[in-house]
Amino acid sequence: MKIYETRSAPNPRRVRMFLAEKGIAMDYVQLDLQKGENLTAQMRAKNPLGKVPVLELDDGTCIAETDAICTYFENIQPAPPLMGVDAKDKAIVAMWQRQVELALMLQVGMCFQHTTGYFKDRMVPVPEYGREAGINAGKYLNILERRLELNPYIAGDAFTIADITALCAIDFARVVKIRFTDEQVNLKDWYQRVNARASAQA
Amino acid sequence: MKIYETRSAPNPRRVRMFLAEKGIAMDYVQLDLQKGENLTAQMRAKNPLGKVPVLELDDGTCIAETDAICTYFENIQPAPPLMGVDAKDKAIVAMWQRQVELALMLQVGMCFQHTTGYFKDRMVPVPEYGREAGINAGKYLNILERRLELNPYIAGDAFTIADITALCAIDFARVVKIRFTDEQVNLKDWYQRVNARASAQA
Repeated sequence: MKIYETRSAPNPRRVRMFLAEKGIAMDYVQLDLQKGENLTAQMRAKNPLGKVPVLELDDGTCIAETDAICTYFENIQPAPPLMGVDAKDKAIVAMWQRQVELALMLQVGMCFQHTTGYFKDRMVPVPEYGREAGINAGKYLNILERRLELNPYIAGDAFTIADITALCAIDFARVVKIRFTDEQVNLKDWYQRVNARASAQA
Repeated sequence: MKIYETRSAPNPRRVRMFLAEKGIAMDYVQLDLQKGENLTAQMRAKNPLGKVPVLELDDGTCIAETDAICTYFENIQPAPPLMGVDAKDKAIVAMWQRQVELALMLQVGMCFQHTTGYFKDRMVPVPEYGREAGINAGKYLNILERRLELNPYIAGDAFTIADITALCAIDFARVVKIRFTDEQVNLKDWYQRVNARASAQA
């Protein structure tokens, strides 16, 4: 089993952190995104969208998409649970995970791709949209600040995959100068607790 | 238990179709998106992002996000399975579901929102980005066409949630004049089979 990834990219970090929380060792194959090593015919055969990370199982089955890879490991090794423990809890975690992905991580990613032109050899950057995406990311930090006023972690009482996604999104957001403020005390406290976990170094 | 939704919107249809496949009856509360009935303080308390659908359980717990709502019902009533049956299968379904969501449904939605100005009272449309999103959706139809050459359904041999997402995205895409072509024979055949299911009328 191995994972094709790019060490500096935010989504592969989510998987590494998830595996570190589970205590699962992994072999990694590094791909240079700027050189387009993720876009070769060989990699497109593993993932038609040409993105990282991609998990390759020993039987050759390839699983792309961060959330799908984490779902696989949650199912083969449920402890410690990072995606909820019963039907209601799993749905709550899935909701926050999805909202952090769409309203924060994706917005930060769109801001990065459309304002920096980092991938301009393979997409058409629209800077005006990138700026809007950055504003959207900032607005979602306000929602998280209110959520964390009443809950120690994003999905509730327990640390989950939603916290991993948010930490990785917030760290990546530095690149486009999006950050929570000193007034967002709950977010700041949450960040310090999550960033202090050993898995944050994975 | 009830679901707040808007009958004409594509994401609520995904949930209705999922529940129809499971044979689960549901009470629905209609919200008028153009009037902003989804953005009231009452609805924001149920879902901070102010989107539909939202599932409200009898204990008052609210679950937003289509995929999270479907995850809930898959867990409380596994038959018939729509999200995979073992760890590997679940990961494969999760991958295709996610890619259909991000590379098709989301792109169609962004094309709609940014080129029509439908929600211009609550967001800044960037038409150039909307057109790029539409092009991206079209490119993903090519990926699906190749996938369906070798597989009867998107995630493989079985009908799954990924087929529901794709059907709802493709039907919604008519609004922005994105459609598969007559040359995309596998996609056309798949569409006819999935659209003929009773759940497609839900």
